[in-house]
Amino acid sequence: MTARAAVSEFDFIHDLKSLSDPNHALNLEDDAAALPAGDVICTDTLVESVHFLGRETPQDLAHKLLAVNVSDVVAMNARPTHALLNLTLPSYCDPTWRAGFIEGLGQACELFSVQVLGGDTTRSPGPLVLSATLLGMLEERQMWRRAGARVGDLVCVGGTIGRGALGLDDMMTGTTNSAAALHFKRPMPRLDLLGCDGVSGCADVSDGLVADLAHICRASGVSSTLDLSRIPYADPSADWALQATGGDDYELVFTLSPTASLPAGCTVVGEIVPIQGDGTVALQGPADMIEATLAQSGYEHF
Amino acid sequence: MTARAAVSEFDFIHDLKSLSDPNHALNLEDDAAALPAGDVICTDTLVESVHFLGRETPQDLAHKLLAVNVSDVVAMNARPTHALLNLTLPSYCDPTWRAGFIEGLGQACELFSVQVLGGDTTRSPGPLVLSATLLGMLEERQMWRRAGARVGDLVCVGGTIGRGALGLDDMMTGTTNSAAALHFKRPMPRLDLLGCDGVSGCADVSDGLVADLAHICRASGVSSTLDLSRIPYADPSADWALQATGGDDYELVFTLSPTASLPAGCTVVGEIVPIQGDGTVALQGPADMIEATLAQSGYEHF
Repeated sequence: MTARAAVSEFDFIHDLKSLSDPNHALNLEDDAAALPAGDVICTDTLVESVHFLGRETPQDLAHKLLAVNVSDVVAMNARPTHALLNLTLPSYCDPTWRAGFIEGLGQACELFSVQVLGGDTTRSPGPLVLSATLLGMLEERQMWRRAGARVGDLVCVGGTIGRGALGLDDMMTGTTNSAAALHFKRPMPRLDLLGCDGVSGCADVSDGLVADLAHICRASGVSSTLDLSRIPYADPSADWALQATGGDDYELVFTLSPTASLPAGCTVVGEIVPIQGDGTVALQGPADMIEATLAQSGYEHF
Repeated sequence: MTARAAVSEFDFIHDLKSLSDPNHALNLEDDAAALPAGDVICTDTLVESVHFLGRETPQDLAHKLLAVNVSDVVAMNARPTHALLNLTLPSYCDPTWRAGFIEGLGQACELFSVQVLGGDTTRSPGPLVLSATLLGMLEERQMWRRAGARVGDLVCVGGTIGRGALGLDDMMTGTTNSAAALHFKRPMPRLDLLGCDGVSGCADVSDGLVADLAHICRASGVSSTLDLSRIPYADPSADWALQATGGDDYELVFTLSPTASLPAGCTVVGEIVPIQGDGTVALQGPADMIEATLAQSGYEHF
């Protein structure tokens, strides 16, 4: 007899095999995979109606699941190599959905040069819950830590800030094809910033610029200024406070030695100063900007 | 200002720090952890009302989350070392629940000699979803693969078979303190079987003995006999078919070279034979036993 256990799960795993590492995934048929060489490991979960709306295509969700984890790896100055996936799928994730997810995952794996190492798929009576665990390699680069900021360092951000929040707004109002909405659905982690000289502390902007800079400050035992008028807002004509505090940008916020060159496309937005209180971010700029940003600060994922 | 982002998540992470690896978890404050040395990696998800009932204590759930993953590591002949956790928590997981979960996790980490490496916690509008990713070390032992079974090998199981299914039955009928229910809530992976000589193929019994033996056969390109009358049933007076096919045992099913000694407490239940069809398990024993087992075979997690 052939056990009829979990045929649909095995079909899905069969499709994942084409994306798997032939040397370490062990054909996805064992209880565990062989651990490849690596330097960092991270894991992040996306929950339907918390981190995404449920209106995204499965291709978008597969991209975003990898991208948010790739962003965490990049924030450590590492290059992603392998992913494990935990996919908790409600009944609407039918074979068509799963084929779309596999398609998007394949595209994202190629885009980020990541191979699948293993995972677990299970059905769920609840919302779609997607986790990925990523491995990354430093390739001789120095690890970036949140705790590395020093007084006198410049506070810098890559790219623009606010696309995540604006994209969420667009998605919620049905404008699903704006540049911001596209960013919300398919964020692009900053692999191009790997190895920049002079970076002392780093985090990716996932909780919002103000909150993520505060993480760096708390970890480093310092405080920081943040000049709201110098932030490169994604849309200068839109709500600044929303953009400075919203999540899902997947840019990098980093501290830079004052003697180092500012990487291309990055902007200085503040300076690390001696600690005041519990690792605080002192907002600078027009009073109304400060007031609005304080009112919106933080991004409650939990 | 101090960003008020996700204070409750940070409190929970603060409590997890006491269980974390001081050398690699980076104080749980970075976007990723430093990857320690290791040989295998696995991940498994538990979903409320799919893999557990929701009547378990948070201490039980923390134990089970680690145990099912430890079992996967042990099935590879590796010793678990580190865990990453993805905790997707509905609103009923209040501070009391979380304190209980941390307590149970601490006990399980000590029991299994596992340190926390990182993770992600998030709220959810749906059921409780718990994932863990475990790392393990072979410590000079040879990796056990499902694909290692050879014709002529004996099929063996550790301990008794059926406690998972009987425990689930007990839990569902309100008998939450039977030995089987206790096993269902707090399974004990077979760390004591690490390093047994002569093991050629191995899997843990999580989907059910019949299904997990079929996994070994398919991976190895062989078939197997399974003598239902020789299975060491957890309760010989209870439903045999249920016990032979139910999941959640977290024993090992393994194939053993015929020249090797049977490890203490293990039982021979069949033999590897040349492939017949698609890696099949040929049930042996009284006709009514075979019929009942065929009717129940498999454990549909997906």
